[in-house]
Amino acid sequence: MTQSRKPLLRALRGERLPRPPWWLMRQAGRYLPEYREMRSRARDFVALCLDPKLAAEVTLQPVRRFGMDAAILFSDILLLPHALGQKLGFEGDGPRLEPIADAAGLARLRPEGAVARLAPVFETVDRCRAALEPRTALIGFAGAPWTVAAYMVEGGGSRDFHRVKAWAYRDPAGFSRLIDLLVETTIDLLSAQLDAGADVVQLFDSWAGILPEDGFRRWVVEPTARIAAALKQRQPECFVIGFPRGAGHYYADYAAAAGVDALGLDTVVPMTVASDLQRRLPVQGNLDPVSLLVGGEKLRRDADALRRGLGRGGYVFNLGHGVLPDTPPEHVAMLARLLAED
Amino acid sequence: MTQSRKPLLRALRGERLPRPPWWLMRQAGRYLPEYREMRSRARDFVALCLDPKLAAEVTLQPVRRFGMDAAILFSDILLLPHALGQKLGFEGDGPRLEPIADAAGLARLRPEGAVARLAPVFETVDRCRAALEPRTALIGFAGAPWTVAAYMVEGGGSRDFHRVKAWAYRDPAGFSRLIDLLVETTIDLLSAQLDAGADVVQLFDSWAGILPEDGFRRWVVEPTARIAAALKQRQPECFVIGFPRGAGHYYADYAAAAGVDALGLDTVVPMTVASDLQRRLPVQGNLDPVSLLVGGEKLRRDADALRRGLGRGGYVFNLGHGVLPDTPPEHVAMLARLLAED
Repeated sequence: MTQSRKPLLRALRGERLPRPPWWLMRQAGRYLPEYREMRSRARDFVALCLDPKLAAEVTLQPVRRFGMDAAILFSDILLLPHALGQKLGFEGDGPRLEPIADAAGLARLRPEGAVARLAPVFETVDRCRAALEPRTALIGFAGAPWTVAAYMVEGGGSRDFHRVKAWAYRDPAGFSRLIDLLVETTIDLLSAQLDAGADVVQLFDSWAGILPEDGFRRWVVEPTARIAAALKQRQPECFVIGFPRGAGHYYADYAAAAGVDALGLDTVVPMTVASDLQRRLPVQGNLDPVSLLVGGEKLRRDADALRRGLGRGGYVFNLGHGVLPDTPPEHVAMLARLLAED
Repeated sequence: MTQSRKPLLRALRGERLPRPPWWLMRQAGRYLPEYREMRSRARDFVALCLDPKLAAEVTLQPVRRFGMDAAILFSDILLLPHALGQKLGFEGDGPRLEPIADAAGLARLRPEGAVARLAPVFETVDRCRAALEPRTALIGFAGAPWTVAAYMVEGGGSRDFHRVKAWAYRDPAGFSRLIDLLVETTIDLLSAQLDAGADVVQLFDSWAGILPEDGFRRWVVEPTARIAAALKQRQPECFVIGFPRGAGHYYADYAAAAGVDALGLDTVVPMTVASDLQRRLPVQGNLDPVSLLVGGEKLRRDADALRRGLGRGGYVFNLGHGVLPDTPPEHVAMLARLLAED
């Protein structure tokens, strides 16, 4: 089987490897001059994501330069609301959506055919698969329903996310209709990525960390478990990495009940906790992106500590959050060398 | 001793009370029409904080309306950088400072006399003390050094706080000069508040949650411990509440080593963890501000769960973050009634 030669997939099966496979969240992006060049060729960010030729090129750029063990599809978690009919734009650093505040807003979404409208994304996956070496895994992704709902309801990022939480607290039945819609469409979205050639999918739950216990269970763990179960049913060989960023004390609940194959760990998960979690599932993470930004001895020390601390189990080296735009590409090259050492 | 009749201080000594004493972070603020009226009388937010008559009035407003067990000084954690000579303004929702990026920026600060320049704050404390009933405690506060440094270096809030972290990682010795300066001036600031009549001080470490293990120990725990120890030496009877918001798995380290008398818990600390922490120190928190915003059955259920879960030890009822500006004042009145029930 070709797959078994891919170091990423071996690590996700829990195999211990002499050198951890690695990739970086946002490895394709603004810190790379060749990305900025591609970006300037597209009308806007959404257009770039929906241009298979450009998006595939952007996906492959970092792998060509640094030889990561995986490429991650260049796309955005908000293409799904976009395909559902919600107006989406990117101003400065952050996304802007026309907020959906209630059942009436929900009724205006068009779930039928939404995933089909993202056909260019699947074509991007197909192009990447064809271009990658057999040893390099291809990762697809989606936002987890809670996080996508948060953006859809708030209309963008937020300091306290009180609108989406207020809806979930005030009217859990109504809010669950939005979550259900996202669960169903996300299953289709990720299935189509797997069909097009992705080996692995990652669910980004960037705002998992703002919910107390019962909300975390209901809006983070349960929707993720439904997605993971449906994907496994359709594609028994697929791998699902769950990344409930900021989950803190709830990481253990997530590991136990979300049905994912591996856990993405954010920057502040302590080594002792990471080791405990690794006894249950392979883990991925969690170098501080600022360590990569700073480089030098700090980067060497932090990368070493992760290899020593987590390298004895199923482990994928990654950051605990995305590459920062100011990161010098040479620091990524240095990291690649460090990780290639025995 | 008068102090022993104050329910807040009894709870902070670890006494179990039939009804938990309560106050709310940002209990004086925009959700109150009488606050908005006061705000409109001052030139800007900083001027309001530095007008003892208006600031005292604002401090007392919620206590008059709802009968909390404590008033918290109306002020801002960024008055300290302001007094140190850093330009400060508030635009829209957030603060704006001229960022300090390095040793040269640090050299432009004027620590000598900085705390004395905050004399109006101490006059506010004095006025509040004189106006409050003997059973009502008065809480002073400051930002913890890490959080104040984060604002000073970033120039405001930030999505990833990479500038302050990069300085701390790249040049820990240089960055520690900023932290040391903040430790020293914060000790003076809080001592002066205690001298003026505050019973308790709270250290707000709003950005404690972004640091990995070693950074948390060095930049959150150690500076807090130095401040707490110095205050205890000057004022053996004082109480210090530490609020390392978002500390997650590091709450236990903080409880063990930060030298505070009580722990402020943020919204996402699970009940089991809160109970464990309470075995070491009295705890304060952690109702979700969105529960208060929503009101009704959700508020009743969440408030009950906290009383049942934490009421058997040293416990101060509070939110896990500040009151949201859209909160209906009637919900706070409802909470007051719920907490007055036996």
